[in-house]
Amino acid sequence: MTTINKTVLSMGEMASGAKLTVPVYSIKGRGEGPSVYIQANMHGAEVQGNAVIYQLLELLKTLPVLGDITLVPYANPVGANHKNGEYTLGRFDPITGVNWNRMYHYNQAQITDFVDHLTNQPQAEIDQQFQQLLVGNIEQKLEHNQYGLTTGQRIAYQLQKMAHQADLVLDLHTGPISSKHLYCPEYAKASASYFDIEHTILIPDGFDGAMDEATFCPWWSLSKQLATKGIAYQLERESFTVELGSQELIDLDVAEQDARSILSYLQYKKVIDTSEFVPSNITRYGCYLKDYKAFYSPMGGMVDYLADFGQVLRAGQPLARILRMDNYGDGDALHYISLDHDVIPILHFASASVNQGTELYKVFSKYFELV
Amino acid sequence: MTTINKTVLSMGEMASGAKLTVPVYSIKGRGEGPSVYIQANMHGAEVQGNAVIYQLLELLKTLPVLGDITLVPYANPVGANHKNGEYTLGRFDPITGVNWNRMYHYNQAQITDFVDHLTNQPQAEIDQQFQQLLVGNIEQKLEHNQYGLTTGQRIAYQLQKMAHQADLVLDLHTGPISSKHLYCPEYAKASASYFDIEHTILIPDGFDGAMDEATFCPWWSLSKQLATKGIAYQLERESFTVELGSQELIDLDVAEQDARSILSYLQYKKVIDTSEFVPSNITRYGCYLKDYKAFYSPMGGMVDYLADFGQVLRAGQPLARILRMDNYGDGDALHYISLDHDVIPILHFASASVNQGTELYKVFSKYFELV
Amino acid sequence: MTTINKTVLSMGEMASGAKLTVPVYSIKGRGEGPSVYIQANMHGAEVQGNAVIYQLLELLKTLPVLGDITLVPYANPVGANHKNGEYTLGRFDPITGVNWNRMYHYNQAQITDFVDHLTNQPQAEIDQQFQQLLVGNIEQKLEHNQYGLTTGQRIAYQLQKMAHQADLVLDLHTGPISSKHLYCPEYAKASASYFDIEHTILIPDGFDGAMDEATFCPWWSLSKQLATKGIAYQLERESFTVELGSQELIDLDVAEQDARSILSYLQYKKVIDTSEFVPSNITRYGCYLKDYKAFYSPMGGMVDYLADFGQVLRAGQPLARILRMDNYGDGDALHYISLDHDVIPILHFASASVNQGTELYKVFSKYFELV
Amino acid sequence: MTTINKTVLSMGEMASGAKLTVPVYSIKGRGEGPSVYIQANMHGAEVQGNAVIYQLLELLKTLPVLGDITLVPYANPVGANHKNGEYTLGRFDPITGVNWNRMYHYNQAQITDFVDHLTNQPQAEIDQQFQQLLVGNIEQKLEHNQYGLTTGQRIAYQLQKMAHQADLVLDLHTGPISSKHLYCPEYAKASASYFDIEHTILIPDGFDGAMDEATFCPWWSLSKQLATKGIAYQLERESFTVELGSQELIDLDVAEQDARSILSYLQYKKVIDTSEFVPSNITRYGCYLKDYKAFYSPMGGMVDYLADFGQVLRAGQPLARILRMDNYGDGDALHYISLDHDVIPILHFASASVNQGTELYKVFSKYFELV
Repeated sequence: MTTINKTVLSMGEMASGAKLTVPVYSIKGRGEGPSVYIQANMHGAEVQGNAVIYQLLELLKTLPVLGDITLVPYANPVGANHKNGEYTLGRFDPITGVNWNRMYHYNQAQITDFVDHLTNQPQAEIDQQFQQLLVGNIEQKLEHNQYGLTTGQRIAYQLQKMAHQADLVLDLHTGPISSKHLYCPEYAKASASYFDIEHTILIPDGFDGAMDEATFCPWWSLSKQLATKGIAYQLERESFTVELGSQELIDLDVAEQDARSILSYLQYKKVIDTSEFVPSNITRYGCYLKDYKAFYSPMGGMVDYLADFGQVLRAGQPLARILRMDNYGDGDALHYISLDHDVIPILHFASASVNQGTELYKVFSKYFELV
Repeated sequence: MTTINKTVLSMGEMASGAKLTVPVYSIKGRGEGPSVYIQANMHGAEVQGNAVIYQLLELLKTLPVLGDITLVPYANPVGANHKNGEYTLGRFDPITGVNWNRMYHYNQAQITDFVDHLTNQPQAEIDQQFQQLLVGNIEQKLEHNQYGLTTGQRIAYQLQKMAHQADLVLDLHTGPISSKHLYCPEYAKASASYFDIEHTILIPDGFDGAMDEATFCPWWSLSKQLATKGIAYQLERESFTVELGSQELIDLDVAEQDARSILSYLQYKKVIDTSEFVPSNITRYGCYLKDYKAFYSPMGGMVDYLADFGQVLRAGQPLARILRMDNYGDGDALHYISLDHDVIPILHFASASVNQGTELYKVFSKYFELV
Repeated sequence: MTTINKTVLSMGEMASGAKLTVPVYSIKGRGEGPSVYIQANMHGAEVQGNAVIYQLLELLKTLPVLGDITLVPYANPVGANHKNGEYTLGRFDPITGVNWNRMYHYNQAQITDFVDHLTNQPQAEIDQQFQQLLVGNIEQKLEHNQYGLTTGQRIAYQLQKMAHQADLVLDLHTGPISSKHLYCPEYAKASASYFDIEHTILIPDGFDGAMDEATFCPWWSLSKQLATKGIAYQLERESFTVELGSQELIDLDVAEQDARSILSYLQYKKVIDTSEFVPSNITRYGCYLKDYKAFYSPMGGMVDYLADFGQVLRAGQPLARILRMDNYGDGDALHYISLDHDVIPILHFASASVNQGTELYKVFSKYFELV
Repeated sequence: MTTINKTVLSMGEMASGAKLTVPVYSIKGRGEGPSVYIQANMHGAEVQGNAVIYQLLELLKTLPVLGDITLVPYANPVGANHKNGEYTLGRFDPITGVNWNRMYHYNQAQITDFVDHLTNQPQAEIDQQFQQLLVGNIEQKLEHNQYGLTTGQRIAYQLQKMAHQADLVLDLHTGPISSKHLYCPEYAKASASYFDIEHTILIPDGFDGAMDEATFCPWWSLSKQLATKGIAYQLERESFTVELGSQELIDLDVAEQDARSILSYLQYKKVIDTSEFVPSNITRYGCYLKDYKAFYSPMGGMVDYLADFGQVLRAGQPLARILRMDNYGDGDALHYISLDHDVIPILHFASASVNQGTELYKVFSKYFELV
């Protein structure tokens, strides 16, 4: 029987002094496999990952665990608790507008410095020293400096400190109204086939503030700089953003399927010692980040979203039709929206009511079979 | 071919001076049947009624129309245009919190006075004078008084002025996440069977500020006061709030079904001269307003809504389960919510994330077959 | 040295399970004077009352206290912690729009019943029994009923239960941008002169859901019903809403002045045994609630508020001028707003940007010297 | 008498189809001086610039104008009309969180290309060609591409297209609660002395998405690249962000002073042919952008802001004190916040209620006299 330890992190204080805390669950493996960090709900409305962590814990109870596993639901309680009307306004700090998943830290400059000072260590030693560098960086940020940290930095850095201590990182998100999809660094493409997710966005080595990038970019950059020096290095760290479907939903039954999909990946990585989990036999499609496009509404109006997710929408077929009753009788009350090339729609906006310029759909504008 | 006229009403001005207008579509009947007023989208996120009005207009184009019909989509553009994050915050004025559908006017006192001054007029004359009284009242409110009108009153009174001029009033709303249902004054119960809607809430003669009440309460009260005086009076005015399903959705195909359901009622009332529309052969259930109950969450948490809409949920069966990951390991992470008697769930809250005390479900706590 | 006890009440839970609590400070008097209940910050942005409670506690430390005093800052942490952009959205539940200060309980019907069952008790006994009735009512509401309580009811009833146990109730609020003013039941007019507040609104015996009404209406109604029965009764319970100035501000120096003003009233009521506090020698003005009028903006625009608070604004003098740059050059870019009679402006809207129909100013439209 | 022309730009459409427009006022000069572009209210709550444009137009009516002047109040009606509770939520798109003043366009890469293709043109010709390049770029962005533009890009690009056609650009903003201050590119430091503003932030050649940067960075970069090639070039284009004081306020009297301050600068630049305007004889202080620091609250609480704007606050002197009534009696209820070095406070947060990590103050952490 697996032992689950629980600790609590302090993530913020509100005006009344109320403290917002985050539970951290950890499982000590047998010390043989890679370590894993899994968090959920960094964006307030994207709650399904909490249910997936629930099901992961329930399943892990009876599984043989090799590597250490840390699981953090409710990663951002400031976001999760920010109701705005009936819904949760959780993509950005409501005071500043800054996206909660764009506040992680990455200092590329110091990697060059690190590589310059390497002598002939074996990889295990390089890995350990580099990890210390990353963790130390974050600790220094977290130590109280005189001008302080923003609300989001305090949260992000505490999470990142834990994530840097793991070999594999999974950040559980959702889209607005969305199919399941995966953000995967290009070098880890082979791992995408172990998740029960049909659509994968392959991301390049660029840092835009997100957790996945903050944890894979340093190692990817390290491996590339070592390569230019002719030093052999096996890049084994991986980070993914797992998009579980739609926001504003909890479904514990679907969460169990998603937990099994994640365990299939962890089994492949030998974090758990089992052969119970078999990835689904589905065709998987990839798309490069530059080809993953947002379509912005050419007009204000009320939208009947027509295109199904995950299936090829042919050129000229409608993504959506937009109702403009103000034009009824003396103009066009219905506008059909389409593109001049085939795409695979992945997600659409959460509301029928849009301004001119609201993001209507996100689509794979170019795609290929992942093998 | 039916002629549709379009006019535009000015409903409000914003800080930049931008004017918010409402299109009003009207069809002149042959002067034989009752007149009808239909509006949609008084609550900003409840947009589907606009699509129903679109389909009604499309269908009415080729139907023989007896009574005058007025249709008002986008009835409240202040609400419809108020985005809050991705969603539309439209149940109440965002500045004051006052529910947009609680600002109509009703002055019961003057009805007694009106009845006291009646002589022996025939009903047609009484109806005409009483209608003049109601319309005159609203006109007086709308005429600029020195201290002005609130944003919501200006909208509500303009709509109410049109509604008072009709015999039949339909106010198209939706629930948050909801099945279709109908608010029907108790005296008009027989009409409920002409809508393709399985669940009807029967409302008593009480005014709480809503459009349906504001237009049927005066006539109901008139008929009751005439009855106490022994004056025969046939109450023929009817008003309904038609709840079309869930908010934040436009579906033009479902809208066509709902338009046909409304036309079935209008055919029954001889507003249109056709026999094309046949109400669905479904079992209809009624519930008195006092038995239409809201269930408030006993705890904060993330909700997996389990109970299906429109079907009897037996005592003890779960309405929902609430996830509390903060209690995992040292408390109950899953809480099942149930009631000790049978209910029919009608709608539930729009988001998985709830505070303690958030309205989770609305249910028929007592119900009966409508015949 | 006065002993201050502290307890903590649980007021709500948020989606992450975070608990919102309220500190309750109580001082046990010598058992000789009336008891007092003081709360602050029921509306989230109206924070200055917390600072006043701070200063009251600091001052009470060294004062001889006769009656029991209970002080509750942060009365509504759900409201206080609800940031919306940079500001606090705290006048109403952000999910439902219901004003937090309209959710208290009052059951007038039971008073008649109570009076009917009185025999010849002395007033002290009547008071005690009636208080038990009121407290018991609230306790019954708070006990978990099957369908639960709304977020706001749970907060309001817990506060009301404490307030019903006191003889004197002070609910500390603020206006948006505002001068100090006092809401005072008409029967307690004499007490208004002990506060350092120039403007008092005299309110009749009507219940609209607020804390002051919820605590004085029952006793007022009791006294009136006893009077109709010829039973002598001395109405000594008093409740006030004290409006401390503008919202979104903490000023500890001003708070000390306001604390002294409140202590002046408590000294008059013999809650504290001192003669240290002397009410300011200022002219005080009264206005009946029906004459306390809101002026709604006749247009959308950007407002330069001109009228000073607390001074008579003569008929025709401008309250404000509204900028409409969209009309510059081909219309009126500046609109001056005035009334045709003298008024005393008390407060104005918090923002320069208004919609048509936004409440611009509240004024005493008729007023008289309070003596 | 100066002729003022008015045109109207279409800036957006909302869900009901309502169009949001922007008035553009233009004055044709005698063709002798530099041209000017002035806009206001890009951030919704920062409305005072509209009043300044009103006063500028009133003053310009009777002034001899040499260069063309374009003035755009209400530059962003989407932001200006977005009320959130009583206040205007206007720093960022409420749907995406993106700061409205971070969406302008700058393509540094093409400058190198432009310089590489220069032959021996005189500066006037270079200027004209470069301006065409900049304007052409924006026009291409604005032409409908298949995937569309975001709401903010559509607004920003339309404004930027006008701004690129002027020699001098003034973007009128305000702080939250703030003293007047100026953002000035380092190279234009001499111009700062012509504004009646005591505090100037000197910004380096870096693009972060703002209007001032978007219009001066290209020319600054051009001049630097020409310098490396040994081509003489006189950099005359200037752009400033003028921070007029606090948001949520309209004051037409203060606006006239600010209009005069701007005219003093325009007189210096020979846009108007007068010597009427004399800059105030005040000491002006500068601070480099890197030394203009935000201080983030170390705790949640309610803040009594103590430090005055514009005056040196000595090391150890309190910026603010934070009230934490939840700690009264068993902790510290009052926390004083200070720094260990002298600073000049420039602005503070708009609300007394802060989360841990909310930006409390912005200060000049190092400063010097501007001469």
